[in-house]
Amino acid sequence: MPARRQPVPRVDTRRAEICRTAAQIIHEQGYDATSVNDIARALGMTKPGLYHYISSKEALLFEILSFGMDQIDAEVVAPLAGVSDPEERLRGILIRHASIATRAHGAVAQLTDEIRALPPRARRKIQQRTRAYFELVRDTLAELKAAGRLRDVDVTVAAFSLLGMILWTPRWFRQGGRLTSEQVAAELAKIALAGLLRPPARPRPRRLRAV
Amino acid sequence: MPARRQPVPRVDTRRAEICRTAAQIIHEQGYDATSVNDIARALGMTKPGLYHYISSKEALLFEILSFGMDQIDAEVVAPLAGVSDPEERLRGILIRHASIATRAHGAVAQLTDEIRALPPRARRKIQQRTRAYFELVRDTLAELKAAGRLRDVDVTVAAFSLLGMILWTPRWFRQGGRLTSEQVAAELAKIALAGLLRPPARPRPRRLRAV
Repeated sequence: MPARRQPVPRVDTRRAEICRTAAQIIHEQGYDATSVNDIARALGMTKPGLYHYISSKEALLFEILSFGMDQIDAEVVAPLAGVSDPEERLRGILIRHASIATRAHGAVAQLTDEIRALPPRARRKIQQRTRAYFELVRDTLAELKAAGRLRDVDVTVAAFSLLGMILWTPRWFRQGGRLTSEQVAAELAKIALAGLLRPPARPRPRRLRAV
Repeated sequence: MPARRQPVPRVDTRRAEICRTAAQIIHEQGYDATSVNDIARALGMTKPGLYHYISSKEALLFEILSFGMDQIDAEVVAPLAGVSDPEERLRGILIRHASIATRAHGAVAQLTDEIRALPPRARRKIQQRTRAYFELVRDTLAELKAAGRLRDVDVTVAAFSLLGMILWTPRWFRQGGRLTSEQVAAELAKIALAGLLRPPARPRPRRLRAV
């Protein structure tokens, strides 16, 4: 159960705490097997107390998935909006997104599959947001390709591969282990950038054994 | 509902059909929300008919996850056992595993998170098998690193990144879409190998502008 870190938590801190704790329990037990009571207990709240924040378990799931996308928007999309160089933007996406995905045991990032439990309208809203983010990643790769800076790879497969690498991290990364979240993010970025970007042009060697 | 392709299906064909269809339903509805009845209906079987093959829903989940690992053993691990060059083995792992992950809508590959629903002993059995496979991937990378053929990357992060790229494919790949399963596997392998392997040494250019 996460401890309160501030004497008077701000509203969004409380929201983050509820979303992360609920995501953790739902991830451990499965969505259908988790009751609102289980979540309230993990938060040290009463069920009516939790209902002060959310109207139903479905609404809570929508809130968790929205919270995940809000973090992407605030910490990946917005800070990179002014970055015109696509390579710098790609590096920023990798580092920033990987850092979110490993945070708080990656519980929120691991709930993406539970979108199936949302009613159609709510599901479409989340899908539109994930789609818009996917397009930012793919457009960045397409921009690099148009500038001749990308290897000869399919930009759609490349974009999903990047997201796969990032979104898989919470399934294996352990906080307090050998590597910090920052180190993992840096390694991922290194692998992905080397895999996608053409190496900087070197002067073509003469046909001699130069030493 | 998959149609029978052979007049008298072999036992393992029937096993594959049961595992894949059950995995698909469980993935769509969630493990807890899926009944043995739902699965029997999707297979065009009666509940007692399905119980001829499996003793419980838990046993079926164990069977599905074991089936996934059997495919990895038969189509990735065994054929590559005699391949001594680690680069060729790595390429084989990528191509072969990606081809399994996109097969039959990747339903089996997408059930990995449901391992939480297994009783401890069954869970440990699956975990031991996935661990052994992970070690094959990481050892292959370590072998390349020892030979100076790997970029300066952490082999553990690299191994999980490869697996993340591969295991994410069923979440976006659509059979009958723009790219075939083979094309996707080839693209993944290209990106991963470029990201991990040192480029072949070129003769060092003299400090002149050579043209």
